Amino acid sequence: MTDRPNRQILLAERPTGNLEESHFKAIDSTIGEPGPGELLVRTILLSIDPANRAWMQGRTYREQLGAGEVMAGGALCEVVSANDAPISPGTIVWGEPGWQQYAVLPANRVLPVMARGPLTHHMSVLGITGLTAYFGLLNVGQPKKGETVVVSAAAGATGSVAGQIARIQGAQVVGVTGSDDKNRLLERDLGFDATVNHRSETLRQDLAAACPNGIDVYFDNVGGRVLEAVLPLMRTHGRVVCCGSVSQYDSATPSPGPAGVPGQLIVKRLRMEGFLVSDFIGEWAKAQEQLAAWVASGEVKVLEDVVDGLESAPRALVGILAGDNVGKRMVRVAPDPA
Amino acid sequence: MTDRPNRQILLAERPTGNLEESHFKAIDSTIGEPGPGELLVRTILLSIDPANRAWMQGRTYREQLGAGEVMAGGALCEVVSANDAPISPGTIVWGEPGWQQYAVLPANRVLPVMARGPLTHHMSVLGITGLTAYFGLLNVGQPKKGETVVVSAAAGATGSVAGQIARIQGAQVVGVTGSDDKNRLLERDLGFDATVNHRSETLRQDLAAACPNGIDVYFDNVGGRVLEAVLPLMRTHGRVVCCGSVSQYDSATPSPGPAGVPGQLIVKRLRMEGFLVSDFIGEWAKAQEQLAAWVASGEVKVLEDVVDGLESAPRALVGILAGDNVGKRMVRVAPDPA
Repeated sequence: MTDRPNRQILLAERPTGNLEESHFKAIDSTIGEPGPGELLVRTILLSIDPANRAWMQGRTYREQLGAGEVMAGGALCEVVSANDAPISPGTIVWGEPGWQQYAVLPANRVLPVMARGPLTHHMSVLGITGLTAYFGLLNVGQPKKGETVVVSAAAGATGSVAGQIARIQGAQVVGVTGSDDKNRLLERDLGFDATVNHRSETLRQDLAAACPNGIDVYFDNVGGRVLEAVLPLMRTHGRVVCCGSVSQYDSATPSPGPAGVPGQLIVKRLRMEGFLVSDFIGEWAKAQEQLAAWVASGEVKVLEDVVDGLESAPRALVGILAGDNVGKRMVRVAPDPA
Repeated sequence: MTDRPNRQILLAERPTGNLEESHFKAIDSTIGEPGPGELLVRTILLSIDPANRAWMQGRTYREQLGAGEVMAGGALCEVVSANDAPISPGTIVWGEPGWQQYAVLPANRVLPVMARGPLTHHMSVLGITGLTAYFGLLNVGQPKKGETVVVSAAAGATGSVAGQIARIQGAQVVGVTGSDDKNRLLERDLGFDATVNHRSETLRQDLAAACPNGIDVYFDNVGGRVLEAVLPLMRTHGRVVCCGSVSQYDSATPSPGPAGVPGQLIVKRLRMEGFLVSDFIGEWAKAQEQLAAWVASGEVKVLEDVVDGLESAPRALVGILAGDNVGKRMVRVAPDPA
């Protein structure tokens, strides 16, 4: 059996400043057969996330990415063949093939996906970002009816779902994005009560006007300047859900933290808490069932941003760091299996 | 009945930079009789705390202090006379007379103290600072046996008690102070396992060496540079108890927050949480009983730093901001009642 041609995108160079497309390189390689306990998978939909950039900084929950390696990334894949592994060819799995057409993965490092509805939903609202919104908001943020919830990167994959779940809980929901177009979309289609543009020179005043009762829960996807503007508006016993810090990812060195830490936390008894969706893996199925029900009833609208072709992946990632996506960005590498 | 002479210390001028003794002014005043529902109290022991300085910044849980006002402060007082109030003359109470010999206070704004042992203990280990250590460490920090607990301002009133309670819980306790003398005292007399001097140029490396397994709980009294050095050493699911940010109090404008917020919180799922001891007022009596038992058994040693005379109060406060105290600093304004 001859090896199979395999297009790959490498991280050619680790960025020292802003990430650019030129930091990547596409090459033609080949891939062999899986060994015992392994699967050969075909990448169908590749997930594009700001966290991909953070992995290049070496300060996260995984190994730092090195120059010359296949760019890392999660994806929905189809199992092509299995070697002494209990997953049948044709199964759809979530795994980490990286930015390439095919990968060999240990069978115990993938999660079979019971596909229902469009496959893209298993990347967006039922995928990691939707689950992140669900557990971050409900388990860490714990909004109560009538409270004010602010969500940053609110038109993004996680923020758009977090905001809608907060609305379903009966909270007043205020979205922060960097675009008036996105803000209109959130208010018109997704039921956000108000929105603020973080590029405004009067960010803090705008936030104060949008949150006349103060802020009970801040679902933070960005860190930096927005976090700094939010802290003085937090109410006593407020909660900050530390989900992401996109504003800090696209550089080699992080900026100082937000003023008000820890002062604001002390005087207002705030809780700031980080979490990873993988900590809740035992509850994923239940959460997916709830999310699917909300989608079916129309209570949660799904925002997706699908880019075509593996070679578009570098552009898609550079763009997401500038906030040019609306909803969950993914790259279609191969058509859905029949 | 003639009014009683009353020496007072005013905040003459609100500081714009470091606090100095010249920002205060002593004057001779008089005080009248209490109105209905009020008490006339004599100040016995005045509490000197870094938070006194923070009150001048206007960013806390109480009104900002203004120039020309009697300097605010908590104290143990003796009730001299009561007007239609259910507290007998001679009772010892905790209240807020401010920096003066006598004050008229509403009877519902003082807490009677069931004095046992030295009165100073009701200012230190059984007072606000001891209770702050107790609730902050046990309710917010929740150290487990074998975990590593780092305490900053560890020779201070709160830190010295927090560290000893952590030791009683079976944790490895590492103290941070700005003085090698204090560090020797903590290791020799208070059972700290290790100590670090925050003035070291290799602070982060020193901390790493003192905490070979990383840090599970950080009891933070100082914020700023020490907090920034601690965050990268925190272990997954670690807790930062936000108790004070002394490093930020002695200026008119706060510095930027610590780098690593929120990044470190996300990747390591940390919880940073503020609290105020007054939130636990219903549990104070039980906590005081436990603390008194630990003092009686010798498991908790009490560090006190008593300065004589009301007019020493400005110097005592300026000094505590520079870290010149060992244990709970207080000013003796009048002798203990017979």
